[in-house]
Amino acid sequence: MQSSDPKLERVRQARSQWEARHAGKYPLRKASFKNWSGALLEPLYTPEHIAHLDPVDDIGFPGEFPYLRGVHPTMHRTRMWTMRLFSGFATPKDTNARYHKLLQSGQDGLSVAFDMPTLMGYDSDHPRSLGEVGKCGVAVDTLADMEVLFQGIPLDKVSTSMTINGPAAILLAMYLAVAEKQGVSFDKVRGTLQNDILKEYIAQKEWIFPPEPSLKVVVDTVEYCTRNVPQWNTISISGYHIREAGATALQELVFTLADGITYVQACIERGLKVDEFAPRLSFFWDCHNNFFEEIAKFRAARKIWARVMRDRFQAQEPRSWKLRFHTQTAGVSLTAQQPENNIVRTAYQAMAAVLGGTQSLHTNAMDETLALPTEKSAQIALRSQQILAYETGVADLVDPLAGSYFVESLTDWMVKECFTYFDRIEQEGGVLAGIKTGFFQREIARSAYDFQQAVESKEEIIVGVNEFTQNCAADEIPILRIGREAEQLQVANLKKAREKRNHEQVEAALETLKRAAAKGDNVMPSLLEAVKTYATLGEMVEVMRSVYGEYREPAFL
Amino acid sequence: MQSSDPKLERVRQARSQWEARHAGKYPLRKASFKNWSGALLEPLYTPEHIAHLDPVDDIGFPGEFPYLRGVHPTMHRTRMWTMRLFSGFATPKDTNARYHKLLQSGQDGLSVAFDMPTLMGYDSDHPRSLGEVGKCGVAVDTLADMEVLFQGIPLDKVSTSMTINGPAAILLAMYLAVAEKQGVSFDKVRGTLQNDILKEYIAQKEWIFPPEPSLKVVVDTVEYCTRNVPQWNTISISGYHIREAGATALQELVFTLADGITYVQACIERGLKVDEFAPRLSFFWDCHNNFFEEIAKFRAARKIWARVMRDRFQAQEPRSWKLRFHTQTAGVSLTAQQPENNIVRTAYQAMAAVLGGTQSLHTNAMDETLALPTEKSAQIALRSQQILAYETGVADLVDPLAGSYFVESLTDWMVKECFTYFDRIEQEGGVLAGIKTGFFQREIARSAYDFQQAVESKEEIIVGVNEFTQNCAADEIPILRIGREAEQLQVANLKKAREKRNHEQVEAALETLKRAAAKGDNVMPSLLEAVKTYATLGEMVEVMRSVYGEYREPAFL
Repeated sequence: MQSSDPKLERVRQARSQWEARHAGKYPLRKASFKNWSGALLEPLYTPEHIAHLDPVDDIGFPGEFPYLRGVHPTMHRTRMWTMRLFSGFATPKDTNARYHKLLQSGQDGLSVAFDMPTLMGYDSDHPRSLGEVGKCGVAVDTLADMEVLFQGIPLDKVSTSMTINGPAAILLAMYLAVAEKQGVSFDKVRGTLQNDILKEYIAQKEWIFPPEPSLKVVVDTVEYCTRNVPQWNTISISGYHIREAGATALQELVFTLADGITYVQACIERGLKVDEFAPRLSFFWDCHNNFFEEIAKFRAARKIWARVMRDRFQAQEPRSWKLRFHTQTAGVSLTAQQPENNIVRTAYQAMAAVLGGTQSLHTNAMDETLALPTEKSAQIALRSQQILAYETGVADLVDPLAGSYFVESLTDWMVKECFTYFDRIEQEGGVLAGIKTGFFQREIARSAYDFQQAVESKEEIIVGVNEFTQNCAADEIPILRIGREAEQLQVANLKKAREKRNHEQVEAALETLKRAAAKGDNVMPSLLEAVKTYATLGEMVEVMRSVYGEYREPAFL
Repeated sequence: MQSSDPKLERVRQARSQWEARHAGKYPLRKASFKNWSGALLEPLYTPEHIAHLDPVDDIGFPGEFPYLRGVHPTMHRTRMWTMRLFSGFATPKDTNARYHKLLQSGQDGLSVAFDMPTLMGYDSDHPRSLGEVGKCGVAVDTLADMEVLFQGIPLDKVSTSMTINGPAAILLAMYLAVAEKQGVSFDKVRGTLQNDILKEYIAQKEWIFPPEPSLKVVVDTVEYCTRNVPQWNTISISGYHIREAGATALQELVFTLADGITYVQACIERGLKVDEFAPRLSFFWDCHNNFFEEIAKFRAARKIWARVMRDRFQAQEPRSWKLRFHTQTAGVSLTAQQPENNIVRTAYQAMAAVLGGTQSLHTNAMDETLALPTEKSAQIALRSQQILAYETGVADLVDPLAGSYFVESLTDWMVKECFTYFDRIEQEGGVLAGIKTGFFQREIARSAYDFQQAVESKEEIIVGVNEFTQNCAADEIPILRIGREAEQLQVANLKKAREKRNHEQVEAALETLKRAAAKGDNVMPSLLEAVKTYATLGEMVEVMRSVYGEYREPAFL
């Protein structure tokens, strides 16, 4: 089709002569080379592979539509990405101490990991919380905990990411209440709430209410922040958990962007104008092992989102077109065996994220498959980012892989495959319908199964697991153990907090919340009042559950 | 100049509009961005930067002239690079045990590190050897040591690299004698001798004889192997030590290729035909931190060497045009502080080497600035390569960065700067003259000084050294300590070896060697006879020194 271009015709002829000269002379390690997204990796990439891409319209320039080359014109030449290590453990006091240490070590932003009871909306003294308090993150029951968590950390100086979904609105209310107590006005509060409930139904399964009311509360937070907390990133639309559940890079890309489209649609239906809220949507991607597949995924994501926002949702503001994102290296790629190998995996993943143009990055610590990171392993993870930033020189360049026959070709493949997959989701009736029929869950399960088969047959090698193994004595590294004391202490603190508060105020605030929920009003104002009475997370969730109901996943697998 | 191409003209216009829209709006982290080779890194790379490069003639295809995209058409899709960890310590028996372990761990080839006395041509019982025996490598005094070193390792099954220069011919003779004793014919012996004496004068300073006789002995080994050991790589023309002494990537490239040209010239003057010996010359590069600078260096090196061999030396065989190379990650980039950070640095450097098309790779262990690697740290270094090979997917592609506006532009810059620098060396009278006037030494010293200044002013950041430091207690890792017993044992073994041998045979063989050296004959046949009498390394060096003299560097700095 490009035979009209004589230069390209010359390449085509030379390449086909090259093929003829070498064909069949070199045995290959594998029958075929492909990545997990399904792209066939050709023996050689040449200008032919990108001849259909216009350097101005299709590849373009950083900081401009379609943002394939990055959301900012100067990218990391102006400012490094935010080095943000996800952390939280035991009591708010323990975590606060770790935060102070991280900020001193040169980390720029905080990223709160909550414990399982908090994520599920249970107080620390709930029977279901037993043995889980402070284990995988920090326990937060009332505003009192949030105050301790950010003690000595001025909320107008730091940007905070909070990874929570089911009860996200409640934790946001607590954070805002802390800001108020610190005398920081809401327009100075910066950070990100994960608040992405759709991916919970698709992959992570930490939901509380059914999909529709959950989506309604998400829209409440978007609406509230749009009016009152203008620098807050309202939803961190997350591929991470979809990927970790076994999706391919392509599926992560497609399902996450589809979730994003669903949120935008819902906010528009609430009556918000797209350009009012879209600039504060952000994304959260996984970065797995396959170096170029991940880079192509990030580049493709920007281009697809820009097109969807401009062409489908008619956003007028360039800020609405830009896909900004946080990246976390792939926890699922880490191995318990030979834990130091995880330092290497994480380093490569981090570089792919940066070459893909990330705005923010969490690097996993080598011991995260075994336990929460120790202070030392967390330090190494942060140092990995600093070496990447200051020693490798990659941050001195804007999208240095642009023009690469292979990288551009793979990026374009990702874009096209994504739009094709969008059509399938449409055929399923959209994201909410797909969740209920188990479409996404089946798609992911199939990919996870394929990968597992490949590992078992050693078609896919995992160093130290199915190849290059060694005896286990060498695997021992010191790990962080959270004692039962943390749980006891947290439960005792909760008891004290309950005793100190004004019970009538609490009851009144919870009643107001219930009425707002029942009427379908935005719940944020009443949540903000409730947290200030030191109502507990569990109490507020219980009120909302009484109105919204509880979700049980149908058995479709 | 490319305004005749309407597509390019469109890019030019779009880019200049892009610049106008964003100019001055984004503050930058640095006043200017450049790499240490001196290339200015532009704000943005577009097709304009590579418009002067023809995709067929200038970039071309892998496995074909000018080999910019790799020496093989299928590269690592056919075979992974050789994972070769440089190792050796204490006595030959200790090192032999380590070799067996490395071969079991999946390493493909051996790489012998000799101790300082061996490198300098002294026996272990020489007064100058005291305290150095077995410390930075393995001690080898006689053929008996070499027999122990390769006990249980069939020399027709393994490829061995020996890093030795001043007495390289003697160690080669010992290795061949072991093969003979194992019943392995010389045409089955595979491996590489470093044997690059020129870079010793330029950078590493481990010479014995003056430059001219040293070069003559190198040519002896090339001539001998060309006739008798056809699979042996006769010289590993080494940039590594030039770089480690403080040269920039560009200087490493230029000086090393200039050394290569000098060897080729000398072999031709001996009467060898270029296509007889050139296919068995190989290269050994450093890989430092700056990711893309290193990749461009490797790609440029292949193109320059191909042109020099074909056009200047009129080599007819494609095998003579191909620059094959081993890479070692940069020892000098490692830090004693926070040693785990070295795992990260090494991982990035290893990936650059692989994307640059290396045939063989040594990854430094994290503790190599502190001591020889422990078994565990050596294991992590090998695992890093295995993760790179089997998990990141980069080995499934042939030169995936080809076409990148930036990478192609930087590669081309390296090629051009190299030819310009060659002219300066010519003006100095060539490599031997440049060594004597201290030209190279001064050039490197200047670069090393500039870098040191940048570190002191924090313009250049080294994580854990001049930024992101922490208290030293966290830096402690177990290190390998070589006890004095190794030295005592080695000296005792040497004594035994001397006692067991036939003294008349030794004397006669040394006399023959002396006559050959004095007459200007090829010394290889007489060295081979001498090692078989168990003459010691020191005895053979002494005989050669008595003919060739000793080199003292003039004071030119």
